[in-house]
Amino acid sequence: MAAQTILFDFTLDTLKTADAKQRQEVVKIVRNELEHVFPQLELAYQLSMEDGYFAVLEENKDTIITCRIFQQGLLTINVEYYLADGKEPLMSFDTGKRLENTLAKKLKALTGQVLPTLKRGDLARYFPSSDERIIEYDIDSLVYEARSPFQKIQIMHSKTLGNMLILDELQNIAESDLIYTETLMGRGIENYEGKEICILGGGDGALLYELLKEKPKHVVMLEIDELVMQACNKYLNSICGDVLEKRKTDQYEIVVGDCVEYMKKFIAEGRKFDYVFGDLTDIPISGAPIGECWDFIRTILEHSFMLLKPDGKYLTHGNGTTCLESLELFEEQLRLLKPKVKFTTSKAFVPSFMEEWLFYQVTFA
Amino acid sequence: MAAQTILFDFTLDTLKTADAKQRQEVVKIVRNELEHVFPQLELAYQLSMEDGYFAVLEENKDTIITCRIFQQGLLTINVEYYLADGKEPLMSFDTGKRLENTLAKKLKALTGQVLPTLKRGDLARYFPSSDERIIEYDIDSLVYEARSPFQKIQIMHSKTLGNMLILDELQNIAESDLIYTETLMGRGIENYEGKEICILGGGDGALLYELLKEKPKHVVMLEIDELVMQACNKYLNSICGDVLEKRKTDQYEIVVGDCVEYMKKFIAEGRKFDYVFGDLTDIPISGAPIGECWDFIRTILEHSFMLLKPDGKYLTHGNGTTCLESLELFEEQLRLLKPKVKFTTSKAFVPSFMEEWLFYQVTFA
Repeated sequence: MAAQTILFDFTLDTLKTADAKQRQEVVKIVRNELEHVFPQLELAYQLSMEDGYFAVLEENKDTIITCRIFQQGLLTINVEYYLADGKEPLMSFDTGKRLENTLAKKLKALTGQVLPTLKRGDLARYFPSSDERIIEYDIDSLVYEARSPFQKIQIMHSKTLGNMLILDELQNIAESDLIYTETLMGRGIENYEGKEICILGGGDGALLYELLKEKPKHVVMLEIDELVMQACNKYLNSICGDVLEKRKTDQYEIVVGDCVEYMKKFIAEGRKFDYVFGDLTDIPISGAPIGECWDFIRTILEHSFMLLKPDGKYLTHGNGTTCLESLELFEEQLRLLKPKVKFTTSKAFVPSFMEEWLFYQVTFA
Repeated sequence: MAAQTILFDFTLDTLKTADAKQRQEVVKIVRNELEHVFPQLELAYQLSMEDGYFAVLEENKDTIITCRIFQQGLLTINVEYYLADGKEPLMSFDTGKRLENTLAKKLKALTGQVLPTLKRGDLARYFPSSDERIIEYDIDSLVYEARSPFQKIQIMHSKTLGNMLILDELQNIAESDLIYTETLMGRGIENYEGKEICILGGGDGALLYELLKEKPKHVVMLEIDELVMQACNKYLNSICGDVLEKRKTDQYEIVVGDCVEYMKKFIAEGRKFDYVFGDLTDIPISGAPIGECWDFIRTILEHSFMLLKPDGKYLTHGNGTTCLESLELFEEQLRLLKPKVKFTTSKAFVPSFMEEWLFYQVTFA
């Protein structure tokens, strides 16, 4: 079940959009060409504005087309109709492209484009990149959905990426993303043998699973959301193995709770680690109120360094490499830390993010 | 200059969308929540249908919102307004997400989503994947645009992929795509030293550039579009080096013309090659009429094998690995060839395609 939304836009010489009369000429051409695809098209409503024009066209009350002219030299056309499962679309992408080409020619448009058809009301398949570009995943099923006290948890299946963990409608990790974990931990660069490690977050289990292959002395993982771990243990086995099956072995312990509380406890006990991993979700799920993300990040950083041995390392993910501003803000926090720290970065293209991601390695200066 | 289009959709219990009265209840909730973001919102037009409902809401004739209810249990909301350069959006993605969350709760929706904001009338930034999913590129400038007798040629700059060659609004190759050329040629697998090679197409110059590094005896490249080569020579140097500067050296010759004509000429002359590369655009640009793509592909295949030495190889790109039907059709053509051929495949994730691509290696059976 899905509505099909097909969006066209054209930039025009502003002479063509400057006054009502010229705009009517544009509309005439648009209607004429649309009628080749939708022969029963009728004008249902129009709104003339000082600085533009808006119309609703419809065919049999099934297909509704809105058409808007902005005096700045812009025309948008939105086509929307309901497509029942198994039916052929009324307008294929190729038909759309031909219509766009013809319209661009007849309107003498400066530019024109038709967007690939958007499918709505079906499985959620559109997610943002870190710089808020639209990504359409080839998701073919919703495998799991639940709401924990902390977040909405979904496992969706992508044809090319395998099962994906989606938290509060943001993609987190997929079966395709070993490179994410390997870059976060610096595989081949760091030596974990015999080391003591603390993971903050990491509920998908992938980091714990990969770290255990490197024979550390002990890993403690502090994850707040029991339900995330249950979901990943069931549906993300290819990246977390069976580490989420047990909560305590000789090699590791998974503590379910607020990591800040446990960090405070460890600090009070004088417990120290060779490595601390910041593997929390990008949007903090702790008690920190909305808008205070950075307070939370600062708290995490400060406590982490109190837990590190003098030659210890704090490893964490940053953001998409295109998000310069966000990365700069994070680095500013690092520079404010006392005692002083220094950092290096590494990056990797993460398949399920469809973009390059930056990772930080932070040590005492 | 760009219009902002923000699309929401919700699936609802069909009880809520089944009759006019229930649908009015839905609309009331929607209007109420929209008014938190757009306080001057007014109803401009509504259309009641037997199987649904459609309304136009507007604020100061600037923001126009359409709202449609489908009796199948689907609600779509489209928000559109003009955003001048340098101005803040009226609705950020975060505001949109909050609105979506609130609406989903109040409507007791089964699912809900807001798509990342679409920017229209700006630089063309949306292109389709091979399976017609939408891809939004981080394009920040149009570097070059021209129309040759064969196609529309654009070079666009992407922040992460570098310069991209776009032919007839389809992405072809970008500076990020060495892996494409290396997988097409099977670098490290094939031995080109001292070999005679024919490239069909290949106007971006990347394949020729990489092949020449492997010391072949001679390469002839048959490319129809002079203008593509000029554009790539100027703007894609990092992937084609200076091979498009000259049309003839001791090592290679670039022939500008219809490859089918030249293949016929070579066949008549009895000329044979160790390797023939099918590096034509996915949409044939030869004289073959629209809809006869497959005739063109057959012609290319038949002539290619007439040009190959008995132990020669035909190497070509296929399609996205998700396009099973299209790949199957191509393999059917291979199976029809006489004399019989056999093939292997390889694949690679091509950065600028944002998907995995399949490549074919075909030899006489």
